[in-house]
Amino acid sequence: MILSSSLLENAVNEFAKLPGIGKKTALRLVLHLLKKEETEVIAFSEAISKMRSQVRFCKRCFNISDKDICNICANNHRRQDLICVVENIRDVIAIESTQQFNGIYHVLGGIISPLDGIGPDQLTIDALVLRVKEEKPTELIFALNPNIQGDTTVYFIGRKLQGMEIKITTIARGISFGGELEYADEMTLAKSITNRIPVDQYIGQVK
Amino acid sequence: MILSSSLLENAVNEFAKLPGIGKKTALRLVLHLLKKEETEVIAFSEAISKMRSQVRFCKRCFNISDKDICNICANNHRRQDLICVVENIRDVIAIESTQQFNGIYHVLGGIISPLDGIGPDQLTIDALVLRVKEEKPTELIFALNPNIQGDTTVYFIGRKLQGMEIKITTIARGISFGGELEYADEMTLAKSITNRIPVDQYIGQVK
Repeated sequence: MILSSSLLENAVNEFAKLPGIGKKTALRLVLHLLKKEETEVIAFSEAISKMRSQVRFCKRCFNISDKDICNICANNHRRQDLICVVENIRDVIAIESTQQFNGIYHVLGGIISPLDGIGPDQLTIDALVLRVKEEKPTELIFALNPNIQGDTTVYFIGRKLQGMEIKITTIARGISFGGELEYADEMTLAKSITNRIPVDQYIGQVK
Repeated sequence: MILSSSLLENAVNEFAKLPGIGKKTALRLVLHLLKKEETEVIAFSEAISKMRSQVRFCKRCFNISDKDICNICANNHRRQDLICVVENIRDVIAIESTQQFNGIYHVLGGIISPLDGIGPDQLTIDALVLRVKEEKPTELIFALNPNIQGDTTVYFIGRKLQGMEIKITTIARGISFGGELEYADEMTLAKSITNRIPVDQYIGQVK
């Protein structure tokens, strides 16, 4: 793409570095910004640089935060003895969107995956173990993706917490809402039969 | 979407204002930037604010430029007596990408479209007429989109230039490469027959 302005070209190149944005889309976005008021564009650019330089990770749960302790941890209306262990910030956002969870989180920052070179040391597992020792929560809910890496991580952390008085659970695996039995994979279907739940409890959940 | 950081939320909202980018994509882009080095993010944000505040329009052709006169106008290797009239900057980029045009441009900034409230006064038509009077180019090539508004604009400018010694042409309308006669609309097919070209000339063009 040949552009007559190096300023424009720079902006297009920077946009094109973002995932899923090619040169043509980048140009469209830049020309859109060019038509906007200068103050709006400054607001856009500042929101991004500010976000990168000022955002922190919560010292307690490693969620993203403006302060040392995030809003979720600092919220006294939430159960402080119920910790949901997730892989990353996106999972926190997904669970928060359901508005069904009233506890707090612990963000691992990834899952154990030797093939990708990610070992327990790169994650916040030690901090979690320390946190369990200090805060003595009653339950740890693992909400990790249902695959080998996720299961390995659950197993590893479970071993580290052996002997401590804490209930360790994992979110239910089963047929999703709107899913069809016919098309479910065998593993999921098998698990959903093994872990079947009494109907009255099920109705209680969807209420 | 419930986010634990207002800085993050701000950045996501700003991204989501861009055309074709929803909240989920915005979050993905912001989390991508969050993982990058701070210097890279600063470079991104500066490229955009700088582009908006420093970019100018060429005083001669109204193309986007870093200086008062754009690179294309300032290039003495290009034919200065051949002006291609286009609707917007994107058209300049499209034509430049073909690497087939060796003249200079005039960007109208839109086309006459009474329904959208765009009259000749909002466009750079007066500047074009003045430019033709002063620079005395030999040919004006209209490369506008083939619709009523485009044709109106060509007609309007044509009238303004009446009596001046200048050749006025428009880019060829016809069946596009790879197109199928069967699926071409009647108007295009009819025009392509009326404006048929000798085969030797045609071969000359694609060489």
